[in-house]
Amino acid sequence: MTALPPINLPSGAAPTQPTHWLGRQFGLPLPILQAPMAGAQDHVLALAVARAGGLGAIPAAMLSPAALRTELAAFRAGSTAPLNVNFFCHTPPAPDTAAQARWMGALQPHFQAWAVEPAAIDNGPGRLPFADDAADLLAEFKPEVVSFHFGLPAPRLLDKVRTWGAKVIASATTVDEARWLQDHGADAIIAQGLEAGGHRGHFLDHDLTRQAGLFALLPLVARTVSVPVIAAGGVSTPQAVAAARALGAHAVQVGTAYLLSPEATTREVHRQALQGPHSHQTALTRLLTGRPARGIWNQLMHDLGPLADVAPAFPLATAALAPLRAAAEQQGQSDFSPLWAGQSAPHCQALPAADITRQLASGWALTCPCGS
Amino acid sequence: MTALPPINLPSGAAPTQPTHWLGRQFGLPLPILQAPMAGAQDHVLALAVARAGGLGAIPAAMLSPAALRTELAAFRAGSTAPLNVNFFCHTPPAPDTAAQARWMGALQPHFQAWAVEPAAIDNGPGRLPFADDAADLLAEFKPEVVSFHFGLPAPRLLDKVRTWGAKVIASATTVDEARWLQDHGADAIIAQGLEAGGHRGHFLDHDLTRQAGLFALLPLVARTVSVPVIAAGGVSTPQAVAAARALGAHAVQVGTAYLLSPEATTREVHRQALQGPHSHQTALTRLLTGRPARGIWNQLMHDLGPLADVAPAFPLATAALAPLRAAAEQQGQSDFSPLWAGQSAPHCQALPAADITRQLASGWALTCPCGS
Repeated sequence: MTALPPINLPSGAAPTQPTHWLGRQFGLPLPILQAPMAGAQDHVLALAVARAGGLGAIPAAMLSPAALRTELAAFRAGSTAPLNVNFFCHTPPAPDTAAQARWMGALQPHFQAWAVEPAAIDNGPGRLPFADDAADLLAEFKPEVVSFHFGLPAPRLLDKVRTWGAKVIASATTVDEARWLQDHGADAIIAQGLEAGGHRGHFLDHDLTRQAGLFALLPLVARTVSVPVIAAGGVSTPQAVAAARALGAHAVQVGTAYLLSPEATTREVHRQALQGPHSHQTALTRLLTGRPARGIWNQLMHDLGPLADVAPAFPLATAALAPLRAAAEQQGQSDFSPLWAGQSAPHCQALPAADITRQLASGWALTCPCGS
Repeated sequence: MTALPPINLPSGAAPTQPTHWLGRQFGLPLPILQAPMAGAQDHVLALAVARAGGLGAIPAAMLSPAALRTELAAFRAGSTAPLNVNFFCHTPPAPDTAAQARWMGALQPHFQAWAVEPAAIDNGPGRLPFADDAADLLAEFKPEVVSFHFGLPAPRLLDKVRTWGAKVIASATTVDEARWLQDHGADAIIAQGLEAGGHRGHFLDHDLTRQAGLFALLPLVARTVSVPVIAAGGVSTPQAVAAARALGAHAVQVGTAYLLSPEATTREVHRQALQGPHSHQTALTRLLTGRPARGIWNQLMHDLGPLADVAPAFPLATAALAPLRAAAEQQGQSDFSPLWAGQSAPHCQALPAADITRQLASGWALTCPCGS
């Protein structure tokens, strides 16, 4: 692949009338939301993006209350910039012994091959939905943005978040989900194109054949709702930021582009896959957690089929994989690792997060005003 | 949905140095390729787009040699503009009685419900791949562009097409397919995003979970190949044309946006679905032909599941559906009709094709030069 053309960064002068949601809402200079990426980042990345002028995010889905407190305190100690804290709001599944047995059966050849003892598996921390304990903890730190994936929490919980004036944002993967989110009080909506890495945010329509690319989803969502729309999914270059603006975005959310930055906690096998020759071969898979999520193709997807329904309900698929993943990663293999990445992964650069943020933001000025 | 902002059409003055492939290659003023849409258009739409300054196309996949001759003659009689003639190049499947029986079994309840006699089914014209008879016929008319879907035909056939200097273009749905097409002689490559209506063009990788949205696919293809890249899939507004240019397109190919034009032969149930409240609910389905194609959700997809493998290999699924489709359409129902449409279908407007062409082309000037 040839290099992208050089980008001339715009001068630092802030426009008097911000053209993007983060400017109008929070006075931020850059239209870049750093996407929360559970398992691949903590407050260090959030701080780096915040200091560069974007909106940093802390992913809370895999954190205990104590760990979340530590993260929030660390961000607040490092910056007075606004912060986005992100939660899942799925309904935890009921235990299902039969499904679990089927899953263990499907993994049996791998347990043998990697000499891992299935009996040693515990249930791990899992992923917990947003609940009262987290809401009460947030009240101490008053994050300016609270974002949700897989819909919105109960109105009672949303009311708690609003007591300190937080803006609520959430992901839509269809026009109908966008309308639902607006009707249920979202202050801005993330239009998550099919290109996005990690978990798909769908919560009304689980038919993957109907998930839309950002090129179609973004302008339709922008026409459908009156709240600001944030483009996500495949936005990894200044040109993509320009394109998103042309299609009606009021800001963009970027995850994958940060995965090689030194501030991310991306694991070594994950970094290798992102820099390898197959980083463009991502797939949606249910295998790694139980819900469809996009990652770079690996051995487990090859063996079982990426969308095989043998994986138990989210997030129960994860625990049985943990010892396999550990054993394989110890040998530098990613056979069972979630290599979350969007379809634009080949654009990833190993640069400081601040540089990535400023470079992406330079694309905002490439688009002539055209209705956005 | 609110209306799109008004578009100021650029003045008619052609730039001295064309910024798009159709200008550089053929001296055409507009960067718009009308996508060939078998079953929904003939030379009338191609002529209207050609007269407006874009590249018209005749879809040959469902035409007998005699019908193709009529179409080519009609276009040449109506305009001296360049023409694109499009072919499929699949390998026709071997007859498979068991698969056919399974398909008839799955349709049995529908035959009963619609009082259709399965014995009355013939095999219909089907869809034939590009072959010598078509190549010899083309030689009489010397179309300036010959385009292919599902890969490229045998080198011997491609050589025939080149004897009169035709440019060969073909669809890629992955970076690897784009590289393959360039290596096998394509003069330009259509990057077909997942958003596109009708048949997916994939030919190397049939795993749908790895099909990419245009936001990711287009810039990666543009970085990978040295030939011009044409963006397709979800390009239905001037803003989308601007976005495609920002992402590296050298022209755009547009199909769905023409389906409501009076020059298209779009059937009545199809027009109704495009103008109905569910036009944004498209899905990829194997049911209607045997290969994944995007269309508006209908009853058959609901009943059998859009990607059910009960449909026989392409194009054998079509014949058994024909009498059901006829019976249902007679009552204004689209239960068995291919309602091909891209994910941007809600942008469709019932306007003359020339207006649609000029309006779309106005988006090309909305993008500031940024490396494309």
